[in-house]
Parts: sequence; C-alpha cells; structure tokens
Amino acid sequence: MKSTEQDLHLIETRIASERLFDGNLLHINCDTVRLPDGGQATREYVVHPGAVMVIPVLDDGRLLMERQYRYPLQQVFVEFPAGKLDAGEDPLECGQRELLEETGYTAAQWEYLGVFHPLISYSSEVIHFYLAKGLTAGKARLDDEEFLEVISMTVDELKSGILENRITDSKTIAGLFWLMNK
Amino acid sequence: MKSTEQDLHLIETRIASERLFDGNLLHINCDTVRLPDGGQATREYVVHPGAVMVIPVLDDGRLLMERQYRYPLQQVFVEFPAGKLDAGEDPLECGQRELLEETGYTAAQWEYLGVFHPLISYSSEVIHFYLAKGLTAGKARLDDEEFLEVISMTVDELKSGILENRITDSKTIAGLFWLMNK
Repeated sequence: MKSTEQDLHLIETRIASERLFDGNLLHINCDTVRLPDGGQATREYVVHPGAVMVIPVLDDGRLLMERQYRYPLQQVFVEFPAGKLDAGEDPLECGQRELLEETGYTAAQWEYLGVFHPLISYSSEVIHFYLAKGLTAGKARLDDEEFLEVISMTVDELKSGILENRITDSKTIAGLFWLMNK
Repeated sequence: MKSTEQDLHLIETRIASERLFDGNLLHINCDTVRLPDGGQATREYVVHPGAVMVIPVLDDGRLLMERQYRYPLQQVFVEFPAGKLDAGEDPLECGQRELLEETGYTAAQWEYLGVFHPLISYSSEVIHFYLAKGLTAGKARLDDEEFLEVISMTVDELKSGILENRITDSKTIAGLFWLMNK
C-alpha cells in the first residue's frame, strides 16, 4: 500500500543510518528516525537484496515443490522454489536460474504475479513471484552446501498440509493463496 | 513438517554456535553445522522469541486491521494485529495484550489456529495465530514509539487488496488464506 501525504501521522523519516553488522549472509542497519510526533527512535533491520519465488505447475496440474532442511528452525520444510537475487539480476532471470539450479526444470511460460514482503517488522526483503508452466525436467545443479529433495503434490494436498499445520512456510502459503484466487 | 530418520539426507547438525551480534532488537547467531554429506558449513540467522498474530472478526463480519508504517520498507502496510512474545509469555496472553494495546479491542472468543514461519531461510521466528470474535471496542494503549491507524475492511476488500498487489504483508496473506479455507 503506497504511502501518501495523508499518511504523515504514520510516516517515520530517516535522520541517520549506520551499518551495525556485516556477516557473510546478513547485514544489519540501525537508523535513527524522526517519529510522526517529532520524537526520535532507532530502527534495526536486516538489509536484504530481494528474492524470487516460483510457483511451478506441472502439465497434470501438480505443483513442483521442495523439501529442505531450514537450520534456523531445525525442521524440514515443504516450500516453493525460491532464491536470493544476485546483484543487478533481473527477477525473471533469477526465477529461471533458481528453478533450474534447485529442481532441474525449465519452464516455457512465465507469468509475473507481483511481490510480497515476508517480514515487514525487521527485514527489507521483498519477494517477487512468478507462475511457471510448460515445465520440462532436467538435471538440478545444487550449490555444494545445498541439499534438497524435489517433490510434487496436488493443490488439495498442499491445502490440506497447510490447514493441518504441517506446511507452515509463509511464502508458500501466500503462493497457494494466489494460485487459488487469481 | 516434522523431520524424521528418513530425512538424514537433508538434516544439518550443530557443531558450534556463536552469538555474532546483539542489538537492541536483533540478535544474530552463526552456527557451524555438519552437512548431510559430512562437510561443514556456517549458518547465520536471526534468533527470535516468537510472535503472535490475531485475526479479529467484528460482529458484522468485517476484519479489524491496522495501517502501520514499516520503516525497513519505507511503506505503510495494511496488516493484522501482531506482536512479539515477551519472555515466558503465553501466546494467548500475548495475542490478547497486543490486540488491546494496538487496537483497544477485547475479544470474548479466541480460537487457536496454529503457527506459521515468516522467514525460514534466516530467522527462527514462529508466529502463533488466533481467530478472535465477540469483539468490544475500547481505548488503545500504544507504546510511545508506536503509531498506527485502526481500520476495518470486508474479506472481499482484503482479498482484492492482495490480488491487486496493494496489500503485500505475507503474515496477513497467510491469515486470510486460513480464514477463507478453514
């Protein structure tokens, strides 16, 4: 939802910005902001280059998905293929690259659906997402440190998995919402 | 999705854990892990205490929501009320507290729906979420540094907002998915 002049009672404006932490993966800023009432506060957040998620639909209607261990939560998650944008990379190219690297599939049809934001309270990450159809199987090209299993399931199976709280990745839930309602 | 012995080809095990950064809000760990193939890697992630989201449905079926400026993305977002768990706090108490503090409303009926995970690649955050009905208006008690607007909208308005890509907060999209399908 774009901000407008009518939102001056909500908007915070930057006074200063400081890079607090530079890790291999994560980068943290702490900005000093002017609050709507004139006061000051600090805002700490992850600075992220953005990512792309792909909703790949096979010719028989099944969804191409991944099972991957996510270390921060010590669990295997069922999720749609996704990955981080390289510097200067076009989101469509990123989606095509990630789909190929992670699953081995290529897609003949790509439809841009839009963006969503996974964690608005402390990350600048935006996820562009695409519907990919006309899929052809090939060979995955995983990074050395990447281990995942490619699976397929029906829309109903994914829906049940979410409503039984076995599938809990929010980008994947958002993806299914779009697929079922667009 | 719970991990089992059958997932040994996916699971990473902790060798060492180091706190790399302690901010006012964010805490970053870097763990050294054993990969499924016996190799080693490091995993950086935000250590988070968990949060609670509330889906408040008014007696006329409209949804009680918030408009809030989210500094990391420099935008006003429409979202369901949510907030971080205090140390040792029960998720239901947290949901009741956040709903009251942010909107001024109390609810007579609380239904636990489950959890989802907003950012599985680099945060340990889990969001418990509840359906709240039997709402009664009162006075909000915002923190000094918190500015937000309480609004209401129909399910159809929220759905259109998402599909027109004006409402892009993934926890809110996941919440609507549950509300429409449970």
